[in-house]
Amino acid sequence: MSTMFAAHYRGNRTFTVDEKEVPKPGEGEVAVRIAYCGICGTDMHVYHGNMDARVGFERVIGHEMSGTIDSIGAGVAGLSVGQKVVVRPLDPDLDCPASRAGYPHISHNLKFLGLDTDGAMQEVWTVPAHTIHILPDDMRMDHAALVEPVAVACHDVRLSDLKPGEDVVVIGGGPIGVLVAMVAREAGGNVVLSEVNPHRLAIAQKLGFETINPAETDLKAAIEERTQAKGADVVFEVSGTQPGVDAMTAVAAARARIVMVAIHAQKPQIDLFQFFWRELKLIGARVYEPEDYDKAISLVASGAIDADTVITDVSPLSEIQTAFEALDASPTALKSLIKVGADA
Amino acid sequence: MSTMFAAHYRGNRTFTVDEKEVPKPGEGEVAVRIAYCGICGTDMHVYHGNMDARVGFERVIGHEMSGTIDSIGAGVAGLSVGQKVVVRPLDPDLDCPASRAGYPHISHNLKFLGLDTDGAMQEVWTVPAHTIHILPDDMRMDHAALVEPVAVACHDVRLSDLKPGEDVVVIGGGPIGVLVAMVAREAGGNVVLSEVNPHRLAIAQKLGFETINPAETDLKAAIEERTQAKGADVVFEVSGTQPGVDAMTAVAAARARIVMVAIHAQKPQIDLFQFFWRELKLIGARVYEPEDYDKAISLVASGAIDADTVITDVSPLSEIQTAFEALDASPTALKSLIKVGADA
Repeated sequence: MSTMFAAHYRGNRTFTVDEKEVPKPGEGEVAVRIAYCGICGTDMHVYHGNMDARVGFERVIGHEMSGTIDSIGAGVAGLSVGQKVVVRPLDPDLDCPASRAGYPHISHNLKFLGLDTDGAMQEVWTVPAHTIHILPDDMRMDHAALVEPVAVACHDVRLSDLKPGEDVVVIGGGPIGVLVAMVAREAGGNVVLSEVNPHRLAIAQKLGFETINPAETDLKAAIEERTQAKGADVVFEVSGTQPGVDAMTAVAAARARIVMVAIHAQKPQIDLFQFFWRELKLIGARVYEPEDYDKAISLVASGAIDADTVITDVSPLSEIQTAFEALDASPTALKSLIKVGADA
Repeated sequence: MSTMFAAHYRGNRTFTVDEKEVPKPGEGEVAVRIAYCGICGTDMHVYHGNMDARVGFERVIGHEMSGTIDSIGAGVAGLSVGQKVVVRPLDPDLDCPASRAGYPHISHNLKFLGLDTDGAMQEVWTVPAHTIHILPDDMRMDHAALVEPVAVACHDVRLSDLKPGEDVVVIGGGPIGVLVAMVAREAGGNVVLSEVNPHRLAIAQKLGFETINPAETDLKAAIEERTQAKGADVVFEVSGTQPGVDAMTAVAAARARIVMVAIHAQKPQIDLFQFFWRELKLIGARVYEPEDYDKAISLVASGAIDADTVITDVSPLSEIQTAFEALDASPTALKSLIKVGADA
């Protein structure tokens, strides 16, 4: 029996790293040897104990991963051992109205790998073959761990229907906000990033973005001045806050598209009058579809995403506990990776 | 000097009907002899005193009109005296970002005729020639007074991108809600109308609509049952209430389009999580564009809009005061018309 290490979430802000048998892929499955796995905001929610009912206390979490194919189960065609891959961590219920309408990524009983099933914070991860996207041979595996969050940003920007030359405001400069800003800039948008945290503002500026701190500057007035009273054509609300929701309507041009990226657990108050008055559009966006993964792979591979600036920390799997603690306490960290494979 | 009668809003829920000189059209203007003018919800807001700051106390209100061309000002081509017409009561500021982007109907300093300038509750009304839409010769002029509110409904349905066979919920069964339901049905939608007022429910049923009273029936459960758990593809929020806003997300299918027809003066709480979770789209819709008027004229002319059921009262201009009082007090009225012309 060959063994490997896997990190388990045990509740109470605690992970244990345990030795266990290397899993074998079942029919229709692929075993992926994990190189890197990023820590997502959702993983931090798990760490904080907010998702205990969903994940339990024996769960291997993690889904922002890169790896190579380790072995291939029965009935899987078109893949080879050793290929560099990422996993699109969605296992949809295909027999539901949303899937039948063509949107399996928001199917009614979607399983999210790494939350509803075990994830990538382990040396070998078995996944359904349909979740695999193949990477270019020369892709850096640390950079490839950004494909999943970049795919979120690609989905958001695609649903916004952003056209080159349009004025864009991204509200919130956390990891997803910064990636949305990068993808929007790559799509030709004139991007302004709004953020109150000075450390995040500094990172955004380092990445070349024009920034506004709405705690210091009147955001609406600043955007109107910048756009000759037009307002922003596209707004991404990534802050998840009431001030962010207030700002999203305030800065929007007539017929602007506002993409709801943030998860609002509370029901904020929204200036619906402005939706009527200026015919605004609000577009909900969740995870990604296969084409968003393809786009994300090409953006990360080409260097259009400045991965080295986005990745602020890398820790080995054996130090996952301190990595979560450090990320939780850090005002400057953007994206922390766990180096899962010893030789990654 | 020839004279005519005009109704003036004098504040304090009061109109006076006064004799005044018949206006002559200026350059680029047309004088329209008014046949009928419907009482809009906005006119009722004026009557209630909610818009005194905007309209003042010498205003002739009214914009849901039909009429014939009485005389034509200098520099106007393509129109003839005697033609049956309706007026699209928008005078946009063409030198603004919204107009330059192709949306003059929501231009920053839009003038709405009949609120910001005098309107149609007078025997002869002078308007910019660009506001005129010509009617078929055989169109009934009382029915034609519905073109303006039907154009609102056509705009709402057009922006919803409704496709034949889709499931539609209209929340709110007032005059606009009923017209939206009619236009959506004409476009091939399977329409359910949600309304709490039993009189309005009765009218909607008389018009052949399936109705649900959400005060008596669980609307979400009823729509899920009707759609095999899918939900509504298109939702029109016409109620302007917090329960309506709660219902609009509750009944929506994955990727549903929710059209914001109502004017929400307050900022309601919105279940933004559902926008994210099911990738819902909220689409603000205001007034109409020229093609919506063309569509509305064809729907009213063809009888696709059951005008005789929608029009519940007709009063002469001399009785405008009692017409407003009666409409304000009536639980059963849907659309009240003022017969402005003596021989209309």
